[in-house]
Amino acid sequence: MNKKGSVVSDVLGNFDHGLTLALSKGRILKETLPLLANANIALLEDPEHSRKLIFPTTHPHVRILILRASDVPTYVENGAADIGVAGKDVLMEHGAHNVYELLDLKIARCRLMTAGKVGAVRPAGRLKIATKYVHLTRQYFAGLGEQVDVIKLYGSMELAPLVGLGDLIVDVVDTGNTLRANGLEPLEEICKISSRLIVNKASFKRKQAVLGPILAQLEQAVAAKS
Amino acid sequence: MNKKGSVVSDVLGNFDHGLTLALSKGRILKETLPLLANANIALLEDPEHSRKLIFPTTHPHVRILILRASDVPTYVENGAADIGVAGKDVLMEHGAHNVYELLDLKIARCRLMTAGKVGAVRPAGRLKIATKYVHLTRQYFAGLGEQVDVIKLYGSMELAPLVGLGDLIVDVVDTGNTLRANGLEPLEEICKISSRLIVNKASFKRKQAVLGPILAQLEQAVAAKS
Ligand SMILES: O=P(O)(O)OC[C@H]1O[C@H](OP(=O)(O)OP(=O)(O)O)[C@H](O)[C@@H]1O
Ligand SMILES: O=P(O)(O)OC[C@H]1O[C@H](OP(=O)(O)OP(=O)(O)O)[C@H](O)[C@@H]1O
Repeated sequence: MNKKGSVVSDVLGNFDHGLTLALSKGRILKETLPLLANANIALLEDPEHSRKLIFPTTHPHVRILILRASDVPTYVENGAADIGVAGKDVLMEHGAHNVYELLDLKIARCRLMTAGKVGAVRPAGRLKIATKYVHLTRQYFAGLGEQVDVIKLYGSMELAPLVGLGDLIVDVVDTGNTLRANGLEPLEEICKISSRLIVNKASFKRKQAVLGPILAQLEQAVAAKS
Repeated sequence: MNKKGSVVSDVLGNFDHGLTLALSKGRILKETLPLLANANIALLEDPEHSRKLIFPTTHPHVRILILRASDVPTYVENGAADIGVAGKDVLMEHGAHNVYELLDLKIARCRLMTAGKVGAVRPAGRLKIATKYVHLTRQYFAGLGEQVDVIKLYGSMELAPLVGLGDLIVDVVDTGNTLRANGLEPLEEICKISSRLIVNKASFKRKQAVLGPILAQLEQAVAAKS
């Protein structure tokens, strides 16, 4: 079997000459698939209904990893994935070294915001903020010249103010339905978020042959949508 | 309405005189419920099939929060929950200040282990370990006098060695099915894990009236099972 043959057939084994793309379930997966279709990359199986983590695609040299959103930069940084799609919120919070942020895919758009209980009066003294965006929250309030206490959470931020864990939360807001359903309201916008295509720096040089056309097709697909 | 009356009816509002219990979905919820039944605490609705985060119970003074496992110590520490059930792995990794670890519930038992690809040969030089247990991993290898590089992940550790992200993982292992399904094998046991009942120190003093009987009944339920 020649080298190409073994790459095509062996999605789990040595994939040194193929391209590994890291995505996360939910909005990013759903909104990235139509863009990938433009580059002739389609999944053969729906990851939302599978426990598998590595998926072959219709493109013989491309496989897809399905990760936690916050793990995507880590995989790309370390070259375990060549390219990945991650929200700007994740990229700013976790940092992403050793990668190029090549393209704003303009998908999974939302806003990073502060939010609190509807009509709540700001308490005296230092604000307590519950969030998984510890770094961004500190940075935002430091920019306002305000010292706050940050409480690190991993999920369901919208619960915190309801049970007295912090005065405010910092979270991403899209339709605002999650906030409303919990008696919370959006307050200040910290920044706008969309998903970005990131590429491992070494892969970018070494895998131009397979990467180049895909990047061009993705760029085209994004441009066609706007 | 007297004070008791308002506590009973208002699970979302002021719950200062009631008891808030923090649990997480999955094995902990499933195995805690039979113990709680012994203290006459039952859910009125199945949290596994709900997007709600706060649940009333059949016990008029007890409500249940459903959190990410790693958020349970944070809620109890800060008094947003009075008591909580958390794995020893989470308690050791995240630390838990300001709480008493009152009871080993002897549920959700598993082992924290190193694991790697079946038959993999240990590479020369520093090991790379992918894990969400960054603190415990450093501590374990420091105890062996070995310097390692730790790669922080948030989920699906079993994927990492398959795509070259680290030589080993550190994760909890129960049946070993997850490892096996991914061509990995357990290597060294770091420690045994089970779930613990933790109590906020201030709540322990202030809420003895409602807490005392529940603790006694839980202790009885645990003893009856062993
Ligand atoms: O304003 P909305 O349209 O209600 O969207 C906001 C929700 O979306 C995000 O969660 P996401 O669904 O990305 O997943 P997560 O809960 O795992 O963070 C965020 O944490 C909110 O829960
Ligand atoms: O040896 P096994 O019986 O296969 O159990 C091990 C699995 O259990 C844990 O995950 P858990 O189901 O607790 O949830 P998680 O995947 O969200 O960590 C762990 O991370 C493994 O994936």
